[in-house]
Amino acid sequence: MHDPAPILTANGPGSPESSGHVELRSDTFTLPTPAMLEAASRAPLGDDVYGEDPTVTRLEALAADLLGKEAGCLMPSGTMANLTALLAHCPRGGKAIVGHESDIYVYEAGGASLCGGIVYDALPNQRDGTIDLADIEEACTVDRSDPQIAPPAVISLETPQNRCGGLPLQLDYLAEVGQLARRHGVGLHLDGARLFNAAVALGVTPAEIGHYADTIQVCLSKGLSAPIGSVLVGDRKLIAHARRMRKMLGGGMRQSGMIAACGIIALTEMTDRLAEDHENATRLARGLSRLPGVRLDPGPPVTNMVFFRIRDDRYTTRSFIAAAARRGVRVEELGRGRIRAVTHAYVGREAIDRAIAIFADLLASGPRGAEFPARHESATMPPR
Amino acid sequence: MHDPAPILTANGPGSPESSGHVELRSDTFTLPTPAMLEAASRAPLGDDVYGEDPTVTRLEALAADLLGKEAGCLMPSGTMANLTALLAHCPRGGKAIVGHESDIYVYEAGGASLCGGIVYDALPNQRDGTIDLADIEEACTVDRSDPQIAPPAVISLETPQNRCGGLPLQLDYLAEVGQLARRHGVGLHLDGARLFNAAVALGVTPAEIGHYADTIQVCLSKGLSAPIGSVLVGDRKLIAHARRMRKMLGGGMRQSGMIAACGIIALTEMTDRLAEDHENATRLARGLSRLPGVRLDPGPPVTNMVFFRIRDDRYTTRSFIAAAARRGVRVEELGRGRIRAVTHAYVGREAIDRAIAIFADLLASGPRGAEFPARHESATMPPR
Amino acid sequence: MHDPAPILTANGPGSPESSGHVELRSDTFTLPTPAMLEAASRAPLGDDVYGEDPTVTRLEALAADLLGKEAGCLMPSGTMANLTALLAHCPRGGKAIVGHESDIYVYEAGGASLCGGIVYDALPNQRDGTIDLADIEEACTVDRSDPQIAPPAVISLETPQNRCGGLPLQLDYLAEVGQLARRHGVGLHLDGARLFNAAVALGVTPAEIGHYADTIQVCLSKGLSAPIGSVLVGDRKLIAHARRMRKMLGGGMRQSGMIAACGIIALTEMTDRLAEDHENATRLARGLSRLPGVRLDPGPPVTNMVFFRIRDDRYTTRSFIAAAARRGVRVEELGRGRIRAVTHAYVGREAIDRAIAIFADLLASGPRGAEFPARHESATMPPR
Amino acid sequence: MHDPAPILTANGPGSPESSGHVELRSDTFTLPTPAMLEAASRAPLGDDVYGEDPTVTRLEALAADLLGKEAGCLMPSGTMANLTALLAHCPRGGKAIVGHESDIYVYEAGGASLCGGIVYDALPNQRDGTIDLADIEEACTVDRSDPQIAPPAVISLETPQNRCGGLPLQLDYLAEVGQLARRHGVGLHLDGARLFNAAVALGVTPAEIGHYADTIQVCLSKGLSAPIGSVLVGDRKLIAHARRMRKMLGGGMRQSGMIAACGIIALTEMTDRLAEDHENATRLARGLSRLPGVRLDPGPPVTNMVFFRIRDDRYTTRSFIAAAARRGVRVEELGRGRIRAVTHAYVGREAIDRAIAIFADLLASGPRGAEFPARHESATMPPR
Repeated sequence: MHDPAPILTANGPGSPESSGHVELRSDTFTLPTPAMLEAASRAPLGDDVYGEDPTVTRLEALAADLLGKEAGCLMPSGTMANLTALLAHCPRGGKAIVGHESDIYVYEAGGASLCGGIVYDALPNQRDGTIDLADIEEACTVDRSDPQIAPPAVISLETPQNRCGGLPLQLDYLAEVGQLARRHGVGLHLDGARLFNAAVALGVTPAEIGHYADTIQVCLSKGLSAPIGSVLVGDRKLIAHARRMRKMLGGGMRQSGMIAACGIIALTEMTDRLAEDHENATRLARGLSRLPGVRLDPGPPVTNMVFFRIRDDRYTTRSFIAAAARRGVRVEELGRGRIRAVTHAYVGREAIDRAIAIFADLLASGPRGAEFPARHESATMPPR
Repeated sequence: MHDPAPILTANGPGSPESSGHVELRSDTFTLPTPAMLEAASRAPLGDDVYGEDPTVTRLEALAADLLGKEAGCLMPSGTMANLTALLAHCPRGGKAIVGHESDIYVYEAGGASLCGGIVYDALPNQRDGTIDLADIEEACTVDRSDPQIAPPAVISLETPQNRCGGLPLQLDYLAEVGQLARRHGVGLHLDGARLFNAAVALGVTPAEIGHYADTIQVCLSKGLSAPIGSVLVGDRKLIAHARRMRKMLGGGMRQSGMIAACGIIALTEMTDRLAEDHENATRLARGLSRLPGVRLDPGPPVTNMVFFRIRDDRYTTRSFIAAAARRGVRVEELGRGRIRAVTHAYVGREAIDRAIAIFADLLASGPRGAEFPARHESATMPPR
Repeated sequence: MHDPAPILTANGPGSPESSGHVELRSDTFTLPTPAMLEAASRAPLGDDVYGEDPTVTRLEALAADLLGKEAGCLMPSGTMANLTALLAHCPRGGKAIVGHESDIYVYEAGGASLCGGIVYDALPNQRDGTIDLADIEEACTVDRSDPQIAPPAVISLETPQNRCGGLPLQLDYLAEVGQLARRHGVGLHLDGARLFNAAVALGVTPAEIGHYADTIQVCLSKGLSAPIGSVLVGDRKLIAHARRMRKMLGGGMRQSGMIAACGIIALTEMTDRLAEDHENATRLARGLSRLPGVRLDPGPPVTNMVFFRIRDDRYTTRSFIAAAARRGVRVEELGRGRIRAVTHAYVGREAIDRAIAIFADLLASGPRGAEFPARHESATMPPR
Repeated sequence: MHDPAPILTANGPGSPESSGHVELRSDTFTLPTPAMLEAASRAPLGDDVYGEDPTVTRLEALAADLLGKEAGCLMPSGTMANLTALLAHCPRGGKAIVGHESDIYVYEAGGASLCGGIVYDALPNQRDGTIDLADIEEACTVDRSDPQIAPPAVISLETPQNRCGGLPLQLDYLAEVGQLARRHGVGLHLDGARLFNAAVALGVTPAEIGHYADTIQVCLSKGLSAPIGSVLVGDRKLIAHARRMRKMLGGGMRQSGMIAACGIIALTEMTDRLAEDHENATRLARGLSRLPGVRLDPGPPVTNMVFFRIRDDRYTTRSFIAAAARRGVRVEELGRGRIRAVTHAYVGREAIDRAIAIFADLLASGPRGAEFPARHESATMPPR
């Protein structure tokens, strides 16, 4: 069942014939590798709520080390890693400066407001995922004695940024935001769900990216193929606070060494191969850009994500996605009529070529039978 | 002490010679009129926490009636009126769609996130105070079954909008947002802190403005000169919920008929005279626009607020404001290098002319002595 | 309308003939005195949101001084004074140790949990209003490094305690709790809604009571007869934090000098006369204790509150209260079948005697006509 | 490493020679069995955030079925299962009625107040883990129209109750609370972290216990030996709400089928053997009760937990625990000077006898060397 062949074989509910599909919806669909399953079944374990799971402790130290930080804390998800980081940085009523296209703001259900009374200050993201320094500067420049104003407490950046074409932030940009944050006495958190993709794309070490941030979260369960988990790293004090919040939220787990064992493989054996995913993304983008009716948006990929739009009167975005799924290629809409295709360890070069061929055929011959858009469907105003 | 002459005479702490100043910082500086003080001392009173203050009951019914709603609730401030409205509309984890330049977002300390676990979704305000319908539509168009996404629960508009030149929203815009809100099943709240100014400027009744909103807050203590209080109006169910939240927040007061008595005068005797404040604002703007180094921003006033910038190398925004204060005219900076001057019942035509003359002199002769900007002061990046 | 005669004359809604009633439901029904109304109409005013209302500043300094603290902050209610105090003492997730019969826990709608993510730790109140020192000690003795446990941050006491017979806490008890709090590094807040009654009853100064607490709230609108407001006092840092929270909650008011002027009279002219209320309470209790079917609970009053139970088969607690109201005496149930009668400036000695006579008659002759309890009514399980 | 021999062999950090210890601190120390590790490595997996992990779906259905409910949701911990249940039952500002000795109140960091603005109403637990029906009735009987009072929304019970001797609640008690809850329109949540132990002890099916509750959480990682996870079950609507909250808190995991696979073994193969743990607990208790200086508290065990106190002048509770650990038996203090010993799959009959022998020796011969209590240590006021 877990053959790490480059085609995903797990069957989702309701999609009985899914095996053989080219799964491009997300790199979160990666299954644990045989090495991970082996490690999980052999790892020394203990009760991590008592701090006695040696495999967890090993993973946390490894992640901290890779990112140049003092301490780490295993979390059940990137959402919790981000949430506990915001809670550690921001007192009640403080502001978290985030990009309006960042996953932490768009896809994490407002957790910081619910659980922490934290106010999101969502500033415009540029197309490259940055937030204008002037905008951040302005958001940080408040009269802290004025009780009318929620004081900024943390800036959160994301690299590479999912909703901004998967583009990695440049080191000098991170450096500048880091300086700005220190100057204003606010923290800097980095949502590095796919930070290792950014490192590979930039040709730098993870620690070079992490250098400027106070806390960083990295996901083990995306391109790195681990089944579950993220690690939050930072200095000892912030991580201790985040660890406390983890327990309160219900993220303290028992023999989590089983997860951590997979995470150790993810961090030590799976990062180098991300370059392959980036090549496949470029290959896919090139193939797509040659098709009539396809426009890359924002442009050629830099990491493992390809974003494009369909400009063909016979399809709406949704009907095109549905038609592709029927032919065996799974992609998804990611806001505003854009389609996202993500490459990963379970999609090889042949699968990419097969996907291109299916897309080409859909656009050459148009919809067939059930592939026509429903009457009521309209291309305007897609889900954000 | 309370002579309602057109010059403010109350002495602020630390400004012993303040009497004689032209107070243009805000219409919140208006003192209660003699009629209000008289009413406060004669009003039948009771314990409003028990619902037994007849004057409060009368004010609440009056405000509801004026705005065409079923019920009203007296609040100690506009901040609490807005906060309780958001709490009544939004469950925990719901989104409040607000303008990024709205007072409810910028100046109310993030109360809805703190007290209600509500997520602010701050959309761009246009220069006229509107939020693009397409932006609101997009923010409302979410997959409500997706647990990643905080679902929108209320839209809040502000009219006239303080940080957008004090411009009133047009009725057809309110109608369109009202339809959009109903279509998406979200509430519409109106921050009408200065709604009566909007009504006078548009030549419509308050109820015509209130028609499209589910809840509306109006301040008694701004241009209408009452000392304290706002009223939140809406349908019975929402107001009952807001009233409950008022008690929890600590806004339930005892013999608040003393405040309500002033509020009744405000609503019955002080709304028509706002036209005078608008004329004075226009007079001030005309005088200012003739001065070299002054630029109105966004342009001529429509209500009682004049916004302008100083373009004179000898002054920073702050040093200009300080110099004006020393000569007897008080204005304040309202974000991004803009200066705000607000007209009200305690600033007559002569005071306006005096203010213009002082501004003219400051720009003609330049700073004197202590009026020079401090070395370290810079015009860049003023407080937001 | 505001004749400060010893009989309350304000008409509640729905009770047109109420004048002439003996109002014993609460001392919050006290109307502002003529001296207060006069002061309110002459006080120098300003915009207190800008910190420029000299009368407010004067009241805050006066209250701080009376209670031996550095700073004070006027609040629209005791609820907000208590809430902002808890917010100033407790970070998110901290515990507030309170009595399970304290008003802050029973009657303030859980505001600290809603607005501050604070956890109430309600410990048993003894009949005299104290919480056993051993219970407090145990609640404070936690392993602060254990992320499972919400760490205690503040202890809140109430004196005199409403639901415990209006009994004042003894100074040595306050001293012991103060020492315990300091030893554990937690704050001590005192809900002194009726602290001046406690001071009069104990024959000590307010400052002697306030000495052991870090923050204290005193109500101006109960026995002291001011119409609106409470003052929170404490050291500068805590009060600055509470002031910030006040603005967020919507308790920042404009020309609140009108309220403060009444409060100054309350603090300077109305505290000594509380002895009279205590005598009247004792007179009422003596009268009641002689009646068959009346049992004082917990016993003779020490301040201005009399608590008693009716043991008469012909009445339920509710039907007795309703019958008394029809005859012109208003009292209310305060949990568990107990009736509360509160004396104050608007109930003189004759009114007390009239009330006793009416109670006597009700018990002698039994219910008449509409005074019989409703069929479905049962004396069991009254509202808490 | 994972030999499921009746002696725990995992090495905790800092205790290299720990293998061979008798681990009685908690049943959370149970390691996954070989069957679980095998299942985890073979389970069909998918991305559960997309609802496509078939093993998770299977576990959720299985748990719901076992407990007689419509739906289930896998959680990373019992803490999150309890927290999401409270969030699903209670709106902002509602009250959760809990036992003051319940784990949900004592050990879950006040999460419901932080994340949900929920007010804990902690009522006294009797020694058998029940809360007096009269106390619950009183807490539920409030005037819901009174804005002063946080309205009750859910009652939470725990069975068997950890801090009350591990005693299971009787079915008729559950039935009575269930009726009471329905009569008052409040929900009933059951913290069944060790519900299968209760079922075995009472000789009933899990569904018979779950019958009266609206939501139930059961832990997979305690006596059932799974490494990670709890399942919350209930009707579809409540579980859908809880699932939404799970995502917000960060409990949505990816290929969580790896955990679920262990959970399926836990629910299908590990429940019957709990009887053995109960026998071992009884054996341990009998052995202990014969030792001088040991007092069982509250008495003989009914499930897998033995609680006892040491009455020996030569030891404090802490020094006794430390001395036992040095000799190879691990137990822990659970509030107020009580020691807890928990039996589970990794502690066989011989280990029990070894533990008894070590305890006997400690009490017979007294402390040796480092086993003496530290000077400053006192037996009074242990951590709660």
